[in-house]
Amino acid sequence: MASNVHPVRIYYEDTDLSGAVYHANYLKYFERGREHLLGPDVLVRLLRDQGTAFVVYKCEVTFKEPARLGDLLEVRTTVTLASDYRLTFGQAVWRPGAAGPMVFGTVELVCVDAAGKLVRVPAAVTEQLAKLTVE
Amino acid sequence: MASNVHPVRIYYEDTDLSGAVYHANYLKYFERGREHLLGPDVLVRLLRDQGTAFVVYKCEVTFKEPARLGDLLEVRTTVTLASDYRLTFGQAVWRPGAAGPMVFGTVELVCVDAAGKLVRVPAAVTEQLAKLTVE
Amino acid sequence: MASNVHPVRIYYEDTDLSGAVYHANYLKYFERGREHLLGPDVLVRLLRDQGTAFVVYKCEVTFKEPARLGDLLEVRTTVTLASDYRLTFGQAVWRPGAAGPMVFGTVELVCVDAAGKLVRVPAAVTEQLAKLTVE
Amino acid sequence: MASNVHPVRIYYEDTDLSGAVYHANYLKYFERGREHLLGPDVLVRLLRDQGTAFVVYKCEVTFKEPARLGDLLEVRTTVTLASDYRLTFGQAVWRPGAAGPMVFGTVELVCVDAAGKLVRVPAAVTEQLAKLTVE
Repeated sequence: MASNVHPVRIYYEDTDLSGAVYHANYLKYFERGREHLLGPDVLVRLLRDQGTAFVVYKCEVTFKEPARLGDLLEVRTTVTLASDYRLTFGQAVWRPGAAGPMVFGTVELVCVDAAGKLVRVPAAVTEQLAKLTVE
Repeated sequence: MASNVHPVRIYYEDTDLSGAVYHANYLKYFERGREHLLGPDVLVRLLRDQGTAFVVYKCEVTFKEPARLGDLLEVRTTVTLASDYRLTFGQAVWRPGAAGPMVFGTVELVCVDAAGKLVRVPAAVTEQLAKLTVE
Repeated sequence: MASNVHPVRIYYEDTDLSGAVYHANYLKYFERGREHLLGPDVLVRLLRDQGTAFVVYKCEVTFKEPARLGDLLEVRTTVTLASDYRLTFGQAVWRPGAAGPMVFGTVELVCVDAAGKLVRVPAAVTEQLAKLTVE
Repeated sequence: MASNVHPVRIYYEDTDLSGAVYHANYLKYFERGREHLLGPDVLVRLLRDQGTAFVVYKCEVTFKEPARLGDLLEVRTTVTLASDYRLTFGQAVWRPGAAGPMVFGTVELVCVDAAGKLVRVPAAVTEQLAKLTVE
């Protein structure tokens, strides 16, 4: 299991008229965390050279506490290779130092080629994950 | 159980570089469907007069088929009052006439007052739902 | 000069914590108006068959009055072929029946091929505009 | 004149099917730069304690070069107090080390109170700008 922590700052663009962050935006923060965990360069190369893209197949999110303008939060991400075809990410947004997450969930990704056909998780990614999982 | 169908058109703003709709945007379409089911006027009045807002507590989404630029789709929504404090929506995005949904899921909403405290689902909403559930 | 009017509904997703629509979102409404004026099908075919895409080169927007949750507004768009390479759109968001626009501006578009190189405005588009400019 | 440089990373959420960043998103990056220049804490306090919010009154943007997935760019911002009621920001997105900006423009902001009425730029902001303009 590999993991990382990625900072996210809350801006005007993230909020809605409730005064808090619009719920769908947490999926964006989760995705930023995943991109940093897998490595933006790896993802860009896969897409450009092989036409391989990651696609969200399933997600499940629980929202416990609202984030607000100016908050500097953490996206905490763990990933496991659930099968040759599927990556499962555990993801959460935390206020640094808090006792529990504000928002947490699970996101399952699969890989597709340029034609949208399901393909195996590329070696470039499994190797990156193996490197991150040193003991 | 009350239900509705709301049209959604896919624009440039909805897509990402994969050529398809960015996954988090389906949550926006779901929310548009919920607003139309509950009635935009009811929601605006609740917020302005009583400070009551709806908050997503939990969601679960499965993505089966990508939507693309120019698509004219349907958001199909059903809602049940799961308890005095919680509404459960079944939601899906369909290509009109298709055999199955492109994206589907469940969204649970609770109500909070201006201070963010949990409150009962307002009568204005339960009455609106009762009206929509003729027989 | 061709023109159209396109309806836009304001949802939670459009607002920010000020209670009004986030300023950048008006550019999205403008773009929806442009897509409907040029025709979604024309745009999709140009992109798919020839790799030709429209790119915003310049925009200028003035914000006079805030839009709010539940508003049902109009995007009013006019377009002129400024040169063989450039379309100039006059665009505004109106409250139906109001004395003046809430937000208005100018957006200049150019066309690029799959490699990002500037190309002439395609015949499919100039013909569509000619059709819309009856007398 | 005060100024700052703020980093921005391009994620999937920022792109559209052209493969590049969706044009309206540059306005978001500009706004992040402005928030960091004025200070997120100052803005949060003004809004919470006095109900004073900043509102974009006018913007003008020129798009020269597309940003792409994985890019790590700079938002460069300068600000001048154009009058007691108006701040004028010069803003641009740069690729670090490039000869010219990818996107650049001007954004004018005014302040409004909780009722949406125009008010003077608050002392907390002019003092913050004075501090940043040492000599």
